[in-house]
Amino acid sequence: MKQFMDRDFMLYNETAKRLYHDYAEQLPIIDYHCHLSPQEIYEDRRYENIAELWLGGRQADGSLAGDHYKWRLMRGNGVPEEKITGDADPYEKFLEFAKTLELAVGNPMYHWSHLELQRYFGVNEPLTADNAKVVWDNAAELLKNDPGFSARGIIKKSGVRFVGTTDDPTDSLEWHEKLAKEEKGFFVCPSFRPDKAVNLTKPGFAEYIGKLAASVGKTSLESAQEVCEALSQRVDYFKARGCKASDHGLDYFMFRRGSDEAADAAFKKAMNGESLSREEAEIYQTKLLLFLARKYHKENIVMEIHYSCARNVNARMFKLIGPDTGYDVIAKSSCYNELAAFFSALDETEELPKTIVFSLDHNDFNQLATLLGAFQGSGIPGKMQLGAAWWFLDNRDGMEEQMKSLGNLGVLGNFIGMLTDSRSFLSYTRHEYFRRIACNLIGGWVECGEYPENEKSLKKLIEGISYYNAERYFGIPEYDA
Amino acid sequence: MKQFMDRDFMLYNETAKRLYHDYAEQLPIIDYHCHLSPQEIYEDRRYENIAELWLGGRQADGSLAGDHYKWRLMRGNGVPEEKITGDADPYEKFLEFAKTLELAVGNPMYHWSHLELQRYFGVNEPLTADNAKVVWDNAAELLKNDPGFSARGIIKKSGVRFVGTTDDPTDSLEWHEKLAKEEKGFFVCPSFRPDKAVNLTKPGFAEYIGKLAASVGKTSLESAQEVCEALSQRVDYFKARGCKASDHGLDYFMFRRGSDEAADAAFKKAMNGESLSREEAEIYQTKLLLFLARKYHKENIVMEIHYSCARNVNARMFKLIGPDTGYDVIAKSSCYNELAAFFSALDETEELPKTIVFSLDHNDFNQLATLLGAFQGSGIPGKMQLGAAWWFLDNRDGMEEQMKSLGNLGVLGNFIGMLTDSRSFLSYTRHEYFRRIACNLIGGWVECGEYPENEKSLKKLIEGISYYNAERYFGIPEYDA
Amino acid sequence: MKQFMDRDFMLYNETAKRLYHDYAEQLPIIDYHCHLSPQEIYEDRRYENIAELWLGGRQADGSLAGDHYKWRLMRGNGVPEEKITGDADPYEKFLEFAKTLELAVGNPMYHWSHLELQRYFGVNEPLTADNAKVVWDNAAELLKNDPGFSARGIIKKSGVRFVGTTDDPTDSLEWHEKLAKEEKGFFVCPSFRPDKAVNLTKPGFAEYIGKLAASVGKTSLESAQEVCEALSQRVDYFKARGCKASDHGLDYFMFRRGSDEAADAAFKKAMNGESLSREEAEIYQTKLLLFLARKYHKENIVMEIHYSCARNVNARMFKLIGPDTGYDVIAKSSCYNELAAFFSALDETEELPKTIVFSLDHNDFNQLATLLGAFQGSGIPGKMQLGAAWWFLDNRDGMEEQMKSLGNLGVLGNFIGMLTDSRSFLSYTRHEYFRRIACNLIGGWVECGEYPENEKSLKKLIEGISYYNAERYFGIPEYDA
Repeated sequence: MKQFMDRDFMLYNETAKRLYHDYAEQLPIIDYHCHLSPQEIYEDRRYENIAELWLGGRQADGSLAGDHYKWRLMRGNGVPEEKITGDADPYEKFLEFAKTLELAVGNPMYHWSHLELQRYFGVNEPLTADNAKVVWDNAAELLKNDPGFSARGIIKKSGVRFVGTTDDPTDSLEWHEKLAKEEKGFFVCPSFRPDKAVNLTKPGFAEYIGKLAASVGKTSLESAQEVCEALSQRVDYFKARGCKASDHGLDYFMFRRGSDEAADAAFKKAMNGESLSREEAEIYQTKLLLFLARKYHKENIVMEIHYSCARNVNARMFKLIGPDTGYDVIAKSSCYNELAAFFSALDETEELPKTIVFSLDHNDFNQLATLLGAFQGSGIPGKMQLGAAWWFLDNRDGMEEQMKSLGNLGVLGNFIGMLTDSRSFLSYTRHEYFRRIACNLIGGWVECGEYPENEKSLKKLIEGISYYNAERYFGIPEYDA
Repeated sequence: MKQFMDRDFMLYNETAKRLYHDYAEQLPIIDYHCHLSPQEIYEDRRYENIAELWLGGRQADGSLAGDHYKWRLMRGNGVPEEKITGDADPYEKFLEFAKTLELAVGNPMYHWSHLELQRYFGVNEPLTADNAKVVWDNAAELLKNDPGFSARGIIKKSGVRFVGTTDDPTDSLEWHEKLAKEEKGFFVCPSFRPDKAVNLTKPGFAEYIGKLAASVGKTSLESAQEVCEALSQRVDYFKARGCKASDHGLDYFMFRRGSDEAADAAFKKAMNGESLSREEAEIYQTKLLLFLARKYHKENIVMEIHYSCARNVNARMFKLIGPDTGYDVIAKSSCYNELAAFFSALDETEELPKTIVFSLDHNDFNQLATLLGAFQGSGIPGKMQLGAAWWFLDNRDGMEEQMKSLGNLGVLGNFIGMLTDSRSFLSYTRHEYFRRIACNLIGGWVECGEYPENEKSLKKLIEGISYYNAERYFGIPEYDA
Repeated sequence: MKQFMDRDFMLYNETAKRLYHDYAEQLPIIDYHCHLSPQEIYEDRRYENIAELWLGGRQADGSLAGDHYKWRLMRGNGVPEEKITGDADPYEKFLEFAKTLELAVGNPMYHWSHLELQRYFGVNEPLTADNAKVVWDNAAELLKNDPGFSARGIIKKSGVRFVGTTDDPTDSLEWHEKLAKEEKGFFVCPSFRPDKAVNLTKPGFAEYIGKLAASVGKTSLESAQEVCEALSQRVDYFKARGCKASDHGLDYFMFRRGSDEAADAAFKKAMNGESLSREEAEIYQTKLLLFLARKYHKENIVMEIHYSCARNVNARMFKLIGPDTGYDVIAKSSCYNELAAFFSALDETEELPKTIVFSLDHNDFNQLATLLGAFQGSGIPGKMQLGAAWWFLDNRDGMEEQMKSLGNLGVLGNFIGMLTDSRSFLSYTRHEYFRRIACNLIGGWVECGEYPENEKSLKKLIEGISYYNAERYFGIPEYDA
């Protein structure tokens, strides 16, 4: 029997162990898409206790923030909301989480949590209700006294070279600027996420457009074209501050071409608070998506597309505690035709940017892999990327399915690999988790005689997927070890 | 090489063997959803031969009954219908089944049949055409002379503690009452399945409503609301006779709110035999589903939802031999929005009952697991359950996929586990099959160091999934071994 | 560690090795569906170099032909189109392919290519950029001097007994006729693929109907019924030349019954170049599909249905290099209702032909397996076949999923097994690949004690799936070894 989560965790054959320990383990991390706060990084935030770090809760500004993966798991164990996002004593919350975790066999949270305990807190025993107090006290001690337990300390300790945050086009990026001046150990660059300008049917759209206008020194924006131009200026502003990627989060992917007049009419209705038909909205949205994609292509900015998520499906809890609190669901969307038409439209004028597509539905992996395969080219290896297993799929089964789909239907050796998509400074262990799983998969193929034991090729594959492919793809300056 | 279906069948690591033999094997069975006849249990039915027991056929009352899983398999081997559901000699049917089975490598029927031969008939050899006669004679001898080979004898021999039958709201439950008085070895409780009152577009609806009226001492029901009230009375009647669960079998899940007037209008049209639009029908159906769910919540009755099945797709065979004869198909339905809206509506007033959702499409597992995760709570561990792999998915691959989905996206330790959904008294071996697969999955994780070898936690997990979670969830009096 | 692709490649247990080497390996091949050119077979075409053989390119007649699986893979590695389908030096193309292959870990192309190198060229080393020149020179030598390196030579060397080509109803079948007279080593029979007569909305329909008319000695066809009758005559013509199967390639499966008048009206619109609604088109298409299925049933010709493919999604590349060049995508279609209705309509009059259904979406496997199970019968074992993993699914994961679906939900022992669906004379190694995977799957079950180690049963299973089931199913004269 293998020991619990030991040095060779998730490495089930000798080649896998060798590949991981010889090549993958020591490479730095490019975390090209996350939700860390640049302000917290700049201010080098520290935490009171492990509940604050792991579970979060009400912040100083009254907002609720924390790890909704963990909240959701605790609800599945019948923990009352008071002890999840409520005002219960932090240790009580931690104890409830420990009890829940014990029952969560097969859940990636089990592994992530223990990787974090091992790597950051030196705890190698499984967390249970029985040792929760010891773990708590030990963590409190480190959090209080260890100088490395700050936002920047954790980032450095984790070997992170690049952090891609997620930012609104109107953001001043002041924290990024300050960090760029002061912090030389790693890069923190903004990603451009213009969802609020695209989603014209969501509440607050008109107000947001006002803010966007202000960000480019205008008092108002009067047409879809003016929105595009404002966004274009903000892309330039972001690029000047190191932006390598954009991000679009969509319930589903739409593609409906219409006249500029139709796009403007939709925009004006939305600005006036009038309701729009799906068709009207989609014409505006499609115009923006096409415009932005072309801009990204021109500026060599990667386009990320995340879709197939239904958000906030529990109305009672949404009223009580708002969005991003663990009430989202995998959607099914049949939008490959729209994705194909979008890519084809961009490719016709050779303005298709490097693109990463993430669907939250694993049933889409094979289909997406073939779709992306139909738009590869321009001399860029792996130009169109099937995104790593995302969110609800970010577990061993999801990762293996994603890599097998890509392996079967594309060039796995060009995969740019993992990201955290996380709000937590400790979640860099997910890169370790991913690299172990990737090494195990490829190592297994070698052990079985399905891929040759050719050291040169294997090194290139593993190092590429772990680090160098992303470095090349996003254009991050080379790493000198 | 492991021996064919030996003591450690399906147990592929040492931990799995230990977990199964130390914990899972000896626990009794809660078969919370099946289609056994309470009359046959009460009358302690016996069988002439193994063909009657396994394949069924025309019953004393002229109806056709038996195991349509086996019929379907035989058709796949080109066996003429005469030797499946027809009047051929029972031994000839059995011989054809034996020949078919030999070719059905990879089919759960292969394992179920041999588990039944091993556990009930002491036959440990593989069944083939060559030994079919010996097996037949041996079974005939036991069926005739062994006093334990009756409906109740088999139930007791199988360690069953609770049988949840499936019953129409208008059922008098006389056999349940008689059993409750006389049989102390196990519980037989009714489940409330009001599909005929919900499916207003199906033939026979008006007649059925008359029957429902009579069951509550009325001559007629005049509105959707009166149907609800009659059903509510019948829920009370069922609950007084031990009912722990309801069941809804739906082609797809609908959710369309309308006025009470619209529901009544749909009801009246249906009563008059007029055709209804899908929208009209759904308003009535939604009203009933919401009303019943709230009633279940009030009475602490579990709500089961089975969906994504297209029934009776072969018109010729439907005319010849009717429903439930092996002509049903996995459907695909995109109804997560409707399920989410239904749960959300119930949760808003805190009237969401404990619910188990079964989809016949394995592609839904991940999505459903996330959907159910958005409605957990109320202090009940695992309140919202992803149902065990059902019907066409009731095999190793389906079970593993269901448990991995639940493991990745929920708290597997709160899973209430297996049911037979069967019409056969011998099918309790499916609980054994499930427990072996569950022990193998979890044991494998322990062997790999992915979950700790903590005896206390493992005992709790395995015993919970095998027995105690269902006992707690359905509120069955504790078992004293 | 197992050696790279050695004698026991893909055989991971002792039973698998024995089953493959004792039974599967030596059986001949029935390649019942491929896209080989009967003219090239008749003329016994030879190749200049391995680039021509593997990658193809512009042909003598100016058309572009070759292996779009390989083209697509190279694009995924950023290879410029010039070195894929363009005019670059053939060796440069081959070198780029070698470089791409090295990165394509987990891709079936990796295995197919190396199987071809091993079996036909005696190259047992992995192909890399480093040894590309040696491999190239070695191949050139064999292609030039080895008399066995011709179309017919390769077919014979590969142990092929039956080649089912894919042919238009208007084809004269002259090459088939010549081959039948001259070539006694193997059969080359036409398959009937009337897509052009069915797809009335595609460009060139009217012209095609003229050609069809001419093929039955008429000047024109004036109605849907006349199209049916012409096709019926061509089925007879094909059957007289050995045709065993038909093939229908559809984006999705439609079923919409209408009057003969409606079908004729649609036909006339199409002949006049008018645009049709989807409904109008489907009435004509459904009429043809029903008519042809009945004809196939009468003539004992197998009906193949391939669907769920979206073709030519990249508009720019379609304009540049046309169809079948690697720009197709897995579609999702929800057409099980239509398939069920089609089969049911045919079955009602007992005119349902033997049918093989291939979906390009692996998410359909379970559903299709249950659908086909509802139409088995007529005394034909495995009458309705779940087709082998096709095209983008033609890899180990796809094959295993297809066989597990069929195993769980049907009679795997009646599976007719593999086909190449290929344009390349070297792709017979895909049969080897399939047989190894099938032996490994079934051998694994035996090793685990899930299926008995019964030599007689195992021989029957493996030989059936590898060869004899297809021989029986298509009615190919028995093989005398």
